[in-house]
This record gives sequence, C-alpha cells and structure tokens, in this order.
Amino acid sequence: MTQPLRLGIAGLGTVGASVLRMIAHRAEALTAATGRSLTVTAVSARDRNRDRGVDLSSLRWFDDPVALARSEEIDVFVELVGGSEGAAKEAVEAALAAGKHVVTANKALLAHHGAALARAAEARGVALAYEASVAGGIPVIKAIREGLAGNTVSRVYGILNGTCNYILSRMEAEGLTFEACLKDAQALGYAEADPTFDVEGFDTAHKLAILTSLAFGVEIDAEGVSVEGISAIQPLDLTMADELGYRIKLLGVAQATEAGIEQRVHPTMVPKASAIAQVMGVTNAVTVDADAVGELTLIGPGAGGAATASAVVADIADIAAGLVRPTFGRSVATLAASRRVEMQRHEGGYYIRLTVHDRTGVAAGVATRMAEANISIESILQRRSAQAASSDPQGLSRQPVPLVLITYAATEGNVREALAAIDRDGLLAEAPQLIRIERE
Amino acid sequence: MTQPLRLGIAGLGTVGASVLRMIAHRAEALTAATGRSLTVTAVSARDRNRDRGVDLSSLRWFDDPVALARSEEIDVFVELVGGSEGAAKEAVEAALAAGKHVVTANKALLAHHGAALARAAEARGVALAYEASVAGGIPVIKAIREGLAGNTVSRVYGILNGTCNYILSRMEAEGLTFEACLKDAQALGYAEADPTFDVEGFDTAHKLAILTSLAFGVEIDAEGVSVEGISAIQPLDLTMADELGYRIKLLGVAQATEAGIEQRVHPTMVPKASAIAQVMGVTNAVTVDADAVGELTLIGPGAGGAATASAVVADIADIAAGLVRPTFGRSVATLAASRRVEMQRHEGGYYIRLTVHDRTGVAAGVATRMAEANISIESILQRRSAQAASSDPQGLSRQPVPLVLITYAATEGNVREALAAIDRDGLLAEAPQLIRIERE
Repeated sequence: MTQPLRLGIAGLGTVGASVLRMIAHRAEALTAATGRSLTVTAVSARDRNRDRGVDLSSLRWFDDPVALARSEEIDVFVELVGGSEGAAKEAVEAALAAGKHVVTANKALLAHHGAALARAAEARGVALAYEASVAGGIPVIKAIREGLAGNTVSRVYGILNGTCNYILSRMEAEGLTFEACLKDAQALGYAEADPTFDVEGFDTAHKLAILTSLAFGVEIDAEGVSVEGISAIQPLDLTMADELGYRIKLLGVAQATEAGIEQRVHPTMVPKASAIAQVMGVTNAVTVDADAVGELTLIGPGAGGAATASAVVADIADIAAGLVRPTFGRSVATLAASRRVEMQRHEGGYYIRLTVHDRTGVAAGVATRMAEANISIESILQRRSAQAASSDPQGLSRQPVPLVLITYAATEGNVREALAAIDRDGLLAEAPQLIRIERE
Repeated sequence: MTQPLRLGIAGLGTVGASVLRMIAHRAEALTAATGRSLTVTAVSARDRNRDRGVDLSSLRWFDDPVALARSEEIDVFVELVGGSEGAAKEAVEAALAAGKHVVTANKALLAHHGAALARAAEARGVALAYEASVAGGIPVIKAIREGLAGNTVSRVYGILNGTCNYILSRMEAEGLTFEACLKDAQALGYAEADPTFDVEGFDTAHKLAILTSLAFGVEIDAEGVSVEGISAIQPLDLTMADELGYRIKLLGVAQATEAGIEQRVHPTMVPKASAIAQVMGVTNAVTVDADAVGELTLIGPGAGGAATASAVVADIADIAAGLVRPTFGRSVATLAASRRVEMQRHEGGYYIRLTVHDRTGVAAGVATRMAEANISIESILQRRSAQAASSDPQGLSRQPVPLVLITYAATEGNVREALAAIDRDGLLAEAPQLIRIERE
C-alpha cells in the first residue's frame, strides 16, 4: 500500500467540519475505493478555540492558511476559506507553487482567477479540483468533464442558486412578494443579511462561468456573463406564468451560438412539464444539451455543509486514486478565447408584461410597434384584475392595466427597440417587465 | 506524449458504429482531456460486408471476438456483442486474462458473472468498466462510484427500462391498454418482437443488481431481485393513480433495511410532484438517497446508439487518463455477502385494487380483514363506473365493482395475508391488483 494522502484543510466552518467528519466516518470505504488511506494532518481557521464538534487535538494547527498551504506535512490543500482575493487566493497560489494538489469550493476565486490558477496547476502537474464550487453536492463537474467526454455540448443551463429558487418557489406557492420571501429566507438562514450577491444573480454568474469554460473548452470569462436578478419579479408575473404554462426560475444559461458562447443569468420562463420546473426550494439542477446524449439533467442539493463536503471529499478521493485531469477539461493553452456575445443578439421567446393606459387603441398600438420590429406574437393576454372589475364594472376609473405578450423567437435588440417605441408613443404607465423564455 | 491507447471493438451494431464515429469526431478533445490519443486498431463483427457508414478498411478484422480480445494489437477490449454467455463472456474473460482493460455495455453479463469478472480484472490490475450497461447515456456509475464516494447510500431507485416507461406513459396519456401500447412500441422499434425480457422487468433487474453492488458494496446478486413486470397494469389503475396523486412507473429499487438490501422491481406509485414522475417516454432516471447529499436524481437517455456510445467512450477516456478503479467500488474480497430479503418482509404503502361483488357489507368485510392483519387504511375509493351508473341507475345488475385501498406502511406479508382472507370470504370477483407505493 502507498503512503497515506496527507490533507491540510483551511477553513473550519460548516463545510470544513463536515469534511473532517466524513473522512473519519468513511475512512474504510474511501481507502477501499481509491487504494490509499486519507489522513488530515493539519488545519487552519480563524478561531482555534471554537467548538466544532470534532477533535482537532492531533492535528497541526496553522493560524495562517498560506503557511498551511506551503507546509511539508501535506499533499493536498483543501481551501474552504472563501473570497476571490486575500487569504484564499494567496494560499491556493502558494499550494500550487509548492506542487500540492488543491481542492476548493470557492467559485468566486475560480471565476476571477481560474485561468491563472489552472496554468499554475498544470505547470506543476497537480490537480485543481472544484466540484464543490458549482451546484454543491451535485457531481456536475465530473459529469461534464468525464461522463460526457465523448459529447459536444451545445447548451448548459441550471438553477444554481438555492436562495433565489427558494424565494421564487415561495412567491409562486403563496402569492407573496419578493420582499416578504426574502425576509423569510433571511430568517431561515437561506439568505445573507446583504442578499445582493445571491438575489441579483452574481453567485449564479460565477458558477455559470465555471460551467461554460469546462463544457465548451473556452477561457473562463465571468465578466462576460450578462446578469439580471430576481428582485423585480412580481407576484403577477408568477400568476401569468402559471396561466401560460410556465414557471419562473433564475437560470444561468451558456449556449453555443454562431457568434460565440452566450452566457446569461436571468429570471426565465421554463415549461411547467420540464424536469427543471419541478425543482423547488433550495434544490439545484443542471441540464446539459449535448450531441450524443441529447439532454441530461442532474438534480440535487446546491448548498449545505454535508452536501458541499460530499463534493470536496469526492475531489479528494479522485486525487487519492491518482486522477489529475486538466482543470477545465484541456490544457489552458488549448482553451479557445472567450468571444463575448452581446445580450442584444440573444434570440429567444419573450414574456413581456406591459402596464398600459386603459384606453382605446392601446393594444393595436403595441401590436403595430411589435410588427415593425419584426416580432411575431404567440399569445396576448389583457385582463383587468378581478378586484378592479368588481369594484368598477363599467371600467370608469381607467386605471392602468396589464397587457402580457408572449413572442415567438425574436432578438433581444428588436424587442428592446419595440419597447422603446411603445414607450415613446406614451402607451406605458410603468416600465415594462421582460422575462426570457427557455425552451427544452 | 505517451503511446496511443489501442482499442479493439467487438460488435459493430448501432452502438459500435457510434463509438467509432465518436472517437474520430472527438479525437482532439479526447486527447486534450486525457493526455493520450485513442486509436481503434481492430474490430470484430458477424458480417464483414455490411455497410455501417464508417470506413473499416484501415482496421484489422477479426471474425472471432475471442481472437480480437487476445490480440497483441489492442490495449482495451470493447465488448458490444451482448448476451450473458457465449462469445461475449468468453471474449471478456480472454481479454482480462491477457491483461487488457475491458469496456462493456453488457448488463446481462455483469449481472450473472460480475463478481468473477471483477476478480479477474483485479488480478491483472486492469479496468472492467460498464457505464453503458445501466441507464445508457446517464453517467450514473461514475456518479455513484466517484461523485458520492463520501456518502453512505441508503436507497437507489430508478426508471431503468425505456420500453416500459414508454408503454406506461402512453397508457396514462391516452387511456390505452398495455397490449395496444406494446404493439406501438414494437412498431416504433422500442420493444423487441419477444418483449418478455423488457416488460416483465428482467432487464431492469439486471441493471438494478449492478447498481446495488456498486452503491452498497455488496456482492452482485441478480437472482436475489424480486421481479414483477407491467403486463398486468390496467388503464383503470392509471386513472386511479392520477386521482390519488400518483403516477405508475416500473421502478428498480435497492434499499438498505435491517435485514439486508432489498432488491425489487415492480410497477410503483410515485408522487406526481416528484422528479421521477416527470420522466416520460423512453427516458431513464435514477435517484440516489445518501447521507450527505440527501437526494440526487439523474435524468437522461436510457438507450440509443449515440447515448450508449457516449457512456462507452467516457469509460475509454477514463482508461486513457489512467483511471482504474475497483469494478464495484472496492475489491471483490471486501464486498459484503448479499443477504436476500424476502419480499414478504418489505414494508411500505400499498395500492390495492379489489374487484368485489356489489353487495351489502363487502366494504366492511374488507376493512375488517385489513384491520385483523394490522393494516391501516389511508384512503378508500369505491365507485361504480359512469357507464354502469347511467345504464343502471338503481344498481340492479349488481356487476362487480372496483374497490381501491391505499394503505399506510404495512408489510407485504400482512397485505398478502389479508388478501388471502378476503378471497376466502368469497368477496372477490377477480384476483386483486397490488401496486407498491414509493415515497420520496
């Protein structure tokens, strides 16, 4: 039997403590599976005295994660510190430079510095493994990198942020506002005190950028992701979606087009009967469209200490078994340059909810502007609310009313142009709501 | 760069031809991902002259797959011949004995001889890879073996046979009989001329036995699977399922219980809102319940040349990258002995459809026998058909009527005992229908 694989873990929060417990609990099975025993030799965290429910007394303690990363006593550096800069970045760089394998759950670090870190790993012939950084406990990195090795991928999309999916699920089920559901999510610990990073789509964008690089063999380009969050979604949009046969999910979508790889994060109408539409609460899901398998969908936990630890330990087990694959599926030098595709060029169906003045000819005016911009309308829904209809049966008050349009495939540029014209015509009482439709 | 990995492919049907095309088409990407180029050097099939749409002129031809398996010109033997005995078995044994890696799509071979073959692979330190044998293009073997390495699995279940799922989907959607849907499936090429192997659940049982061994670390025991097919499912059962909030799927289920690992294949009521209930047509799905990730579901194509080839090529790529993991996740010597659990001991909810004589006291008689066997009833549905009600409003004809019971968790032994007593009481006009309920 070979020497034990020596692990150094930096960051002992929920995930780190779970990793420690899992390695102890599954020791025999992991050794049987990989042919090598795993031993945690050293750890680093901010507070040495906090009770984490695990015995650290036999482990070497480092106050400084960078010193741990360089330690002669470890073969693998497990980075669970977090953050795209500072200690996490320095420690990962130090570990790679010292020829140590790195396992990380840090999507921000990879999204911003993935290419440079992959190059450093490659130079030393070590692994930079990051299964835990995307979709928590779902082994999606492994599925794309290895399971679909024979496939050419045309699209990857998914529900990558549990906070947003929890909020949208509750808004839909209970007819609540975004603000009310966010407050509940915060109370339950599903959302941060400052929820911007989650609810405005940036977390999803980081994860999507990683998937894009791996699935399409292009350089990672997190800044190239078009990002729109869920804070503007209103209960009425969810009701309308339901009537039209859709659900609204915050999706990250990477799609091969003639112009390059579109990378976009936005609230999305998905057909109610699709597998991804069934995914409720904090659960994550990823669908890959690829030439040989057609469609492959993975559904599972996107966060949580044990689920994230599961992905970290899977990466460690791969290293123990001797598996060192190129970080993004191929050497950094052979990754294609990222060509950004402007959102204006996106082509797809659109849900457009206008709030129009309730007067004769408005629907005709809207329809004309749409036609001028070459947009075909699949369906149109105009209805006063039940409340308005009962309190004012003759329609005398002439309050603004919603007018919902579903378009056939159109380019975003044309849709924006039509909406600008409709606005110039003075037909709108409020800014329009626009939600993209993603078909299976 | 190391030497190219030399492949010999036995069996050039739809899958084999797809593998050849995929390796040619994805050559650059596969080399970039694995660090090694792949080259098919030799092939074997029954008919040398058949046009397969691929150029075989540069490849060495073997009439005998066993001779190909032993050839000095290959490093990996790809077995796509099929069948649990005969040429496939001899060739795989010969390849392993000669120290060659084996990739196979042959579930029957693994189900019947998996342990012996795994032992032979282990003795020579070569891979015996079989991703394509279960759920076609879904990388479920990899997900369980590697992605969930840190987890203890408590249950694996799935839709593993596309033919059955196609038939049940059409029966549900169109109210057709099993026989009518089977005929269509045969016309479309989804079912064989002799459909027994698929529709009676044996194909699912083979795949389940493989998943059981891998997920629970026990010796493979295909004969230990309790098997029941879908041929007795009637349109009325699908209607009732719908009313009660379920769909009927043919599931393979392996579940850890105190007595051992239950392995069972049977038509199953699954909650309509579950991910697996959305899986329609020939698509496959597998759900794994495990301690760290909770629930992980994979959905994708279960068959087809390209999808199956995708799994075969993924296995080949793993070998090219140097990955040799123990066949069933650990060495054969450390696999636990399989302890068979009698179906009588199964505990779960049951859907019981009785066809009872339409006379006073029948429902009471049934309920009494259930109570005597310690079975609690969750719901009960008794209804004459609309047709009967309209043609005979007074109920004078007294035709037998359906009586549907949903039980709380009960043991199969108790359910069978109660049904036998009800039958002895002379209450039944037909044999009872019994469908197990699987909760998420």
